[in-house]
Amino acid sequence: MTDRVYNFGAGPAMLPEPVMRKIQEEWLNYRGMGVSIIEISHRADAFIEVLEEAKALFRELTDLPDNYRILFMHGGARMVFSALPLNLAGRCATRKCLYAETGNFAKVAAQEAQKFCQVKTVISSAAGGYDHIPELPLELIDQDAAYLHITGNNTIFGTRWNTFPETGKVPLIADMTSELLSRRIDYRRFGAVYAGLQKNLGPSGMAMVIIRDDLLGFADAVTPTLLDFTQADKDNSLTNTTNTFAVYVIKLVLEWLQEQGGVAAMEEINEAKAARLYQVIDDGDFYRGIARKDHRSIMNVSFLLNGDGLTAKFLQQAEDRGLYALKGYRSVGGVRASIYNPMPMVGVEKLATFMEEFAARHG
Amino acid sequence: MTDRVYNFGAGPAMLPEPVMRKIQEEWLNYRGMGVSIIEISHRADAFIEVLEEAKALFRELTDLPDNYRILFMHGGARMVFSALPLNLAGRCATRKCLYAETGNFAKVAAQEAQKFCQVKTVISSAAGGYDHIPELPLELIDQDAAYLHITGNNTIFGTRWNTFPETGKVPLIADMTSELLSRRIDYRRFGAVYAGLQKNLGPSGMAMVIIRDDLLGFADAVTPTLLDFTQADKDNSLTNTTNTFAVYVIKLVLEWLQEQGGVAAMEEINEAKAARLYQVIDDGDFYRGIARKDHRSIMNVSFLLNGDGLTAKFLQQAEDRGLYALKGYRSVGGVRASIYNPMPMVGVEKLATFMEEFAARHG
Repeated sequence: MTDRVYNFGAGPAMLPEPVMRKIQEEWLNYRGMGVSIIEISHRADAFIEVLEEAKALFRELTDLPDNYRILFMHGGARMVFSALPLNLAGRCATRKCLYAETGNFAKVAAQEAQKFCQVKTVISSAAGGYDHIPELPLELIDQDAAYLHITGNNTIFGTRWNTFPETGKVPLIADMTSELLSRRIDYRRFGAVYAGLQKNLGPSGMAMVIIRDDLLGFADAVTPTLLDFTQADKDNSLTNTTNTFAVYVIKLVLEWLQEQGGVAAMEEINEAKAARLYQVIDDGDFYRGIARKDHRSIMNVSFLLNGDGLTAKFLQQAEDRGLYALKGYRSVGGVRASIYNPMPMVGVEKLATFMEEFAARHG
Repeated sequence: MTDRVYNFGAGPAMLPEPVMRKIQEEWLNYRGMGVSIIEISHRADAFIEVLEEAKALFRELTDLPDNYRILFMHGGARMVFSALPLNLAGRCATRKCLYAETGNFAKVAAQEAQKFCQVKTVISSAAGGYDHIPELPLELIDQDAAYLHITGNNTIFGTRWNTFPETGKVPLIADMTSELLSRRIDYRRFGAVYAGLQKNLGPSGMAMVIIRDDLLGFADAVTPTLLDFTQADKDNSLTNTTNTFAVYVIKLVLEWLQEQGGVAAMEEINEAKAARLYQVIDDGDFYRGIARKDHRSIMNVSFLLNGDGLTAKFLQQAEDRGLYALKGYRSVGGVRASIYNPMPMVGVEKLATFMEEFAARHG
């Protein structure tokens, strides 16, 4: 489709075109029902089927162990920032919760948790502008804590945890908003994994929470009902009217992912997409990557231009070629290319070629 | 469009067909941008414009006084059930909040509030099966309470407050989920009005909160950030990534409402729609309305069939004519026709005619 552009925004991000076309096709008449999927009850058979298929597909694609539950929660990852301590701090008399500060949202998650529990920040890369993931040895992980929270991929700075820390008996909780389903993960390493949908999975306004079942049942009495994981699990995420549109889109995105060959195939494509951009960045002095090489994200490629005042020109010329939303986060500046699952290699190749040409002209 | 059916479900409910067609048309290419409106940042100019237009349209359509703020909150009315005491109980040292129990959701709202404040139920129609709205004289309204909560329209039983109680200096808060924008309201009578969107306004998963500005600033310290009205107001409802799809649909629905002549014109149509159904119910003994006549809703018309075992047949034959989702709520049984703003008179007329014919055949 010639009039669609490549959108490198950090989210809400582009969705797979086949998914968008499918939504459009069945918009007025879902499966011959004469209504849209968003115009029927969340308790109607046709919607429950969508919800169950989404869960089954996710389970299949991730090889998720049986003792993990899949929840759809309102409000995105930011709402889960509040829900985590409300649901889990009560596991330990200390109400101590550990946070690894590796970026902006990691910090915001800890700040929110301070309302509800005893937060201890175990590592921080703030001093280095969050350009890497510090070492986190087991001895830094207090074994009387309710959980350790990490941010798997740091959207703004373009860093990620390549391997995950050993935590002893403390459950590891990961915010994977900007990388869920982008690489293979052994879920058994985690107590819970969660993600806002608006990057790899669907529209904005909802989060998926994957949680080991022994972590349910500890919610504080003052937990708002819709933030209570145990209640959500009991009600199959239908304690109230869920965001039916979002669940429907997730299901379509998961089907699309399956057609692409699943998570392993997608990871390979994502590695190739990222490698292509990092190759241009590393080839010469014109561009400078923000993240340290050994902690580079394959979802968000953040870099600066060495030439003074060239960034605005870069962004404008990129737009002229249909390469959109490349502006870096305000606190970092420069350029950020978010290349989530739905971004095809051809879009990345277009960007890489443009980067090479721009460097040749101005370098 | 011949293959669309009439969906009388209580919500998520049908949306205006012109709105649904507009969404479909611009789905892959919003205003020539080459992406969908759900694929761009919530901070992009094109989205902010949608958000601001939605607010401006709502203000214009409701003649909303300047000292009321418009907020978009995640999670629907049920999330607001938690947010209300968290935001408002702190206004009074007593932390006393008054609730009028006129139906199922009115009761659920009070139950949720008990987690966060001192709930006092001032009236209840539970004993009569919630078939009416009890009198609520000023002397029942403790003047040291933080607010009085009512449910404007009770979806399940089909009752509504025709006039609103005098509350002295206690702010009146109304859940108007199933009737917002269906009738003219003098907002100056209220401290706050809120509604889940999935009935008159848009898709599920979000609520609008209209709140008088002097009620901001009292949130408890333990309020989850995304439930904090003051924070939402400060951030123009963009503390995190909002449900951009929902805001977009609301804007289109408000434009459609304006084209219909606004709230007064819509109220007139709604009165006529409801009157047509109640006329059939009252004409003979075959049907029996659930709500007392003087408290009848114009949004949800709930009734029983007097003939034993005829309800299932009624529902089946209705479906055969394209009249869907008429089954009454499980605790009440019978039939419920939800006739929100988007339900056209022609759909109601079809239902009324079917009811008359069914009664003639089986009466």
